[in-house]
Amino acid sequence: MVNGGVWTMDIREALYTTRSMRRVKPDPIEPDAQARILDAAIRAPSGGNAQNWRFLLVDDPALRAQLGPLYRECRDELWTGVYKPRLDAAAADPEADESIQFLKIKRSADWMADNFEIYPLLMFAFAQHDPSGGSIYPAIWSAQLAARADGIGSSLTVMLAFRQAQVYEILGVPEDEGWNMAGCVPFGYPTGRWGVAQRRPAHEVAHRNQWGAPLGLTIDEPLYP
Amino acid sequence: MVNGGVWTMDIREALYTTRSMRRVKPDPIEPDAQARILDAAIRAPSGGNAQNWRFLLVDDPALRAQLGPLYRECRDELWTGVYKPRLDAAAADPEADESIQFLKIKRSADWMADNFEIYPLLMFAFAQHDPSGGSIYPAIWSAQLAARADGIGSSLTVMLAFRQAQVYEILGVPEDEGWNMAGCVPFGYPTGRWGVAQRRPAHEVAHRNQWGAPLGLTIDEPLYP
Repeated sequence: MVNGGVWTMDIREALYTTRSMRRVKPDPIEPDAQARILDAAIRAPSGGNAQNWRFLLVDDPALRAQLGPLYRECRDELWTGVYKPRLDAAAADPEADESIQFLKIKRSADWMADNFEIYPLLMFAFAQHDPSGGSIYPAIWSAQLAARADGIGSSLTVMLAFRQAQVYEILGVPEDEGWNMAGCVPFGYPTGRWGVAQRRPAHEVAHRNQWGAPLGLTIDEPLYP
Repeated sequence: MVNGGVWTMDIREALYTTRSMRRVKPDPIEPDAQARILDAAIRAPSGGNAQNWRFLLVDDPALRAQLGPLYRECRDELWTGVYKPRLDAAAADPEADESIQFLKIKRSADWMADNFEIYPLLMFAFAQHDPSGGSIYPAIWSAQLAARADGIGSSLTVMLAFRQAQVYEILGVPEDEGWNMAGCVPFGYPTGRWGVAQRRPAHEVAHRNQWGAPLGLTIDEPLYP
């Protein structure tokens, strides 16, 4: 929601509804919103406050046209590689809840790959000296949350790492300075609606004091809205 | 801010003021706030929505007493190892802005190490099949942002990885299931005040279309408040 030029949103609404939003319109992202996205990103903490990060916004259609085919190659490798077991399991039992959810994600991810060129803005994020990722993904996630508050959808993809050399060449990224590409976030105004993400509840994935011990809290329903 | 049992905060306030907050009081974190923290964490996206994560809350003083000395060993290794060049540079030129800021972080980090046992709540986060970290750090950062909205400070530390085997033994984490410890977040009510973090401005760390090219936006002052 933007009120008189000042955008605002409750933190809970942002945390609960910033899902991977892949189906978007080609409408451009206004410069003020781009500034809000980047300025939120750089407020995130990083180890030793080193801020060893770089963000590269890509809106040039000629570059997007080069990246799209590479992205589809990565997508094809994903389905025939690391995700093949899950895909086979879903095909074998298409009525199972897990299969339905996985195939839904696949359709959404395929839409993104097939339409990669239409995203009006891509944000690539790079980090130096960050082997865990703990000093770059908070900044990326802040960018996505800030975008959400402006009604802008996004999703993080790390797949282009499969074609890193080509991507670095297209974007002019130096190969010899230790910049690791943490991912690419395509932004766009969604065609669909925002909603609270369904997740396995916290008490099933969290323990207290010892691995496997009960959390001591039960959270059957999302605590928002 | 908690109003009638419902906590609320503007997303921008959370994104801009959730700094690493290490100086905290020993007061316990109420169970409702713990639930809000975890429920926010699990709403974050993960690759393929796989949710291959586990969160381990530690509030048992006996466990914290075992972890504290290990944490201080890790801290000592950090200052004599990876951070030694920055420490030497700061000692050689203590009046430089960078030195002042680095020594301020060091004092804060040392306070955390020296007082590790007083944190009323630690959250350890683990992930499987997440080599980049892109599927766990958004969840951790969401937990920290949700805590911020409840007035609870936190900071992410990945240092205990230096003593991973001992930490896994203390917490009962299986060694053979591929769970990677992404980090530990100590939570507590701050002794100091919240404020907007000073950072290198976005236009100095962001480019448009080509590495090194101007961003085309200038953001001299934080866009919040």
